[in-house]
Amino acid sequence: MQEKIIVIGAGLCGSLLALRMAQRGYAVVVYERRSDMRQKSVAAGRSINLALSDRGLRSLAMAGVDQDILPLVIPMHGRMLHPLEGDNSLVPYSGRQGEYINSVSRGGLNRVLLEKAEETGQVTYYFDTACIHADLEVGTVYLKNQKTGEEFHDSAEVILGTDGAYSSLRNVFLKDSARYRFDFSIQYLQTGYKELEIPPAPGGGFRIEKNALHIWPRKGFMLIALPNLDGSFTVTLFLAMAGDGESFARLNTDDDIVTFFEKYFPTALLHMPDIVADFRQNPTSSLGTVKCFPWQMNGRFLLMGDAAHAVVPFYGQGMNASFEDVRVLNDLLDQYGDDWPQVLQAYQDLRKKDGDAIGDLAMDNELEMKSATADPVFLLKRKIELALEQSYPEYYSKYSLVTFNDDIPYHQAMKQGRDQDVLLMEYARKAEHWENVELEYVVKLLNDKGFLKRAITS
Amino acid sequence: MQEKIIVIGAGLCGSLLALRMAQRGYAVVVYERRSDMRQKSVAAGRSINLALSDRGLRSLAMAGVDQDILPLVIPMHGRMLHPLEGDNSLVPYSGRQGEYINSVSRGGLNRVLLEKAEETGQVTYYFDTACIHADLEVGTVYLKNQKTGEEFHDSAEVILGTDGAYSSLRNVFLKDSARYRFDFSIQYLQTGYKELEIPPAPGGGFRIEKNALHIWPRKGFMLIALPNLDGSFTVTLFLAMAGDGESFARLNTDDDIVTFFEKYFPTALLHMPDIVADFRQNPTSSLGTVKCFPWQMNGRFLLMGDAAHAVVPFYGQGMNASFEDVRVLNDLLDQYGDDWPQVLQAYQDLRKKDGDAIGDLAMDNELEMKSATADPVFLLKRKIELALEQSYPEYYSKYSLVTFNDDIPYHQAMKQGRDQDVLLMEYARKAEHWENVELEYVVKLLNDKGFLKRAITS
Repeated sequence: MQEKIIVIGAGLCGSLLALRMAQRGYAVVVYERRSDMRQKSVAAGRSINLALSDRGLRSLAMAGVDQDILPLVIPMHGRMLHPLEGDNSLVPYSGRQGEYINSVSRGGLNRVLLEKAEETGQVTYYFDTACIHADLEVGTVYLKNQKTGEEFHDSAEVILGTDGAYSSLRNVFLKDSARYRFDFSIQYLQTGYKELEIPPAPGGGFRIEKNALHIWPRKGFMLIALPNLDGSFTVTLFLAMAGDGESFARLNTDDDIVTFFEKYFPTALLHMPDIVADFRQNPTSSLGTVKCFPWQMNGRFLLMGDAAHAVVPFYGQGMNASFEDVRVLNDLLDQYGDDWPQVLQAYQDLRKKDGDAIGDLAMDNELEMKSATADPVFLLKRKIELALEQSYPEYYSKYSLVTFNDDIPYHQAMKQGRDQDVLLMEYARKAEHWENVELEYVVKLLNDKGFLKRAITS
Repeated sequence: MQEKIIVIGAGLCGSLLALRMAQRGYAVVVYERRSDMRQKSVAAGRSINLALSDRGLRSLAMAGVDQDILPLVIPMHGRMLHPLEGDNSLVPYSGRQGEYINSVSRGGLNRVLLEKAEETGQVTYYFDTACIHADLEVGTVYLKNQKTGEEFHDSAEVILGTDGAYSSLRNVFLKDSARYRFDFSIQYLQTGYKELEIPPAPGGGFRIEKNALHIWPRKGFMLIALPNLDGSFTVTLFLAMAGDGESFARLNTDDDIVTFFEKYFPTALLHMPDIVADFRQNPTSSLGTVKCFPWQMNGRFLLMGDAAHAVVPFYGQGMNASFEDVRVLNDLLDQYGDDWPQVLQAYQDLRKKDGDAIGDLAMDNELEMKSATADPVFLLKRKIELALEQSYPEYYSKYSLVTFNDDIPYHQAMKQGRDQDVLLMEYARKAEHWENVELEYVVKLLNDKGFLKRAITS
C-alpha cells in the first residue's frame, strides 16, 4: 500500500504540493473548506491576479507544469509610474534581459494545478470540507462537510497544512500554545485595499500599456493595476482604513468616491467607467503579516505557505514563497530519503528565517511603492541601479536578488539588498542629478563592501 | 435602575475591578470559568505567591482594601543571593527606607477581594461559567455553565474582559482579526518553570531568612523562593524546557532530579525533603508574553490585566500592572464623568504603551535575575545604585522607578531606567572595584544626562 499524506487546503500552495507528493508516489488526500473552484468563479475579496516570478516558476518547473502555466501569464517588464503631474515613466524591474515578472490569474493558475494533480490518479479531493480540529499527538484531523454538516476524521503519518493566512491547522497549534510553546503573531497595516477594474478597450485590447505593472503613487496611498488575458486590468486601491488623512472611512457617498478619484487618479479614472458600482460592490479588506513558530509538530504536522508566513502583497512574493516552500520540502525529501521526521525538522530549521525575511521585505516595499516611487532621490537611485545592472553583470539590486535569483535564500537577499540600498540611496542623495553620477565610483563603493558578488547560498 | 457592567473573569484583576465598579454604583455581574476558590484550594500550576508592591497597593488603597490585605503579606527587603560558592549576600531593593516588596498568596488575596466585592451587595458572581463567544456589535456575551452544560447569554452597555493570559474574550477579537485589524502576539520563552516547596521548620518558623526574595542564580537558570505566612517558602525552578544545556527534558529519573539539585542547589536542597515527590507531582509550565491591540472595541468591550498584556514573571509586576489598570480606568471615569466610549478610548490611548513596557521590562529582568546577579560588574553597579539612593534622594534606580514610583508610567520608567543602566554598567565595568568608585563623579554623569530628576508624568 502506498504511504498516505493528508493536505489541508487546495489553494495554490496545497495544489502544487499535492501534485508533487503524488509525483513522489504518495497517495494524497486533500481537504478544502471551499467549493471546487473548477465549478464556479473564484470567491470575491481575494486578489484576482498575482505576480509570478522566478522562484515560483522554478517550483512549477520542478513539477513539470511550467509550460502549462506560461500561456496564462502576461509579462510585466517594469513599473509604469503615473505621477499626478508630468509624464509617465517605465522603470524596468531589471537592467538585464529576460528579467521580468508575470501577471497571472489566481483562479486560472489554481485550476491548472488542481487538474494536473488529479490527473496523476493519486490525489483525492474533498471540497466543502473544513478542518475543525486535529490531534497533534496521534496524527488525526477532524473534518466537517460544510454542506451536509457530516463530521468525520482521518489519519496519516504526515499531515501538511496549506490552508492559508487564517489556517485552521495553525489555530490548533495556537489553541494549545502553552503546551507547544507555539509563538504566533498577526499584525495588520493601517492600509487596507479594495479591488476595482479597468475593463478591456471597447473593440478589445488593452486601454493602457499591457506589459507593465502600473502604479499611481500618491504618498501614503496608491493605485496599482495588473493586466489580464482578456484585456482588462485588475486595479487595487491601497489606502488607510481610517485616520487623519485620506481613508476608506471618508469615502461614503458616490460623490466622495468620484471626487477622490478625480483629485488623485484622474488618468486612471478615464478608464474606469464603473468606478462607483465597483467600489460599492467590492469588499474593503485588511492586510496582515503572520509569523509563527514552530512550523512542524511531532515530526508529522507541518504548516506551509500562508499558513506559516502570510505576508502583505507589496513584494509580489507571497505565492512565489509558497511555491518555493514546496520545492524546498521536495529537495529535503530527496536529501533525507523521505524520512519525514528528519525532513520536517530540517525544513523548519532551513526555512523559518526565509519566511520571516519575505514578510519583512514585503513591509519594506509598501513604503517604496506608496511613496518612494514619487521621490526624485529614489528614482535616481533606481536609474543608477539599472545602469549598474546593464554594465556590471555581477551587480544585482535588492529587487533582483529577491525576485530573479531563486538560488539565494530570501534572508540573504534581504540582508545584502538592504545594505546595498543604504549605500545607493546615500550616494543618490549626494549626487542629486544623473549628470553627477560616476558609475565607476559607485562600483568601487559597492566592491569595497563585497556587494559585487552575489550572496553565497548556505 | 442601576447601570449594569459585565466582568468576565474573577481573578485578581476582575475581583478588584468588580469591587471598584460596585463602589462607583454599578450593578456588576461577574462570570468566572473556574469554581469559587473560596470553596476549595486554588488550582495547581499557577503561581502560588506573588510580589505586591506600590502600584498594586495604591490600587488596593483606592478601593479601601489595603488594610485588609496587609496582614496577609510578608515584606521582602531585598534579594538574598545564594551563590554556588562563597557567602550569601542580601542586595536591598532600594537604598531608601520603606521601599520593599511583599510576598502574598494569590489565593488569599483573591479571596479577600471576592469577599469585599460581594459585601457591597452590588456584585453577582456566576462561577463555573465560561465565556464561549461574544457579539462585539451588540454587546452580548454567550456563556456556558461548565457543570450543567447550560448555555445562555447576557448583555450590557459595558463588558470588561479580565479573563487572563488565555482570555476567551480576546479570542473573540482574534477570531475576527481581519475585520477589527486586531494585532496579536504570544511569544514563549525557552525557559519554563516548576513550583516546589521549602516546608516550615520542624518546630514552626522559617528555615531561611524570612524577609527576602531568595535567588540561587546559575547562569541560564535559577531557583527562587518567596516566604509564606505559615513558615514555608514557595520555590520556583526556572529552567530551559529543552536544548543543549541543562533542561527539564533531561530531568527524568529520581536520580536525575536529586543529582541536579545536589550539583547546583545544594544549600536549597537541604531544606527540601520532598524534592522528588514535589518535582514529579507539580506541572512544568511555559512562560509567555502577550501583546495585542486594540484593547477596546466599539466603545463597549475592553481587555484588562493579563487578557491585554500577559507578562513573564521576572519583574514581579504582572499583578501590580493589572491592579494599576483598575486604578487608571477609575481615574478616567472620574475625569470623563463615566462616559464609557470616551473612557475606553482614552484608557487604550494612555495605557497601551505601559502594557507593552511592563512586558519588555519583565523580559529584561529574566536575564538580570538568571545571570547578571552572578556577575561582579552587575553586583558593583547595584552597590553604586544603593549608595546613590542612600545619599542622593533625587536618584532612583530602574527597579525603584518601576516598583516604588507609582506616579511614573511604566513606559517612562523603562526609558529612563534603561538609559541609567547603560551608563552605570559602563561606569562599573571601568571602575572594577568599589574602592575606585567616586560617587560624586557618578552623580555628575547622571546629572549631565538629566537623570537626577524623575521622569515627568505625561
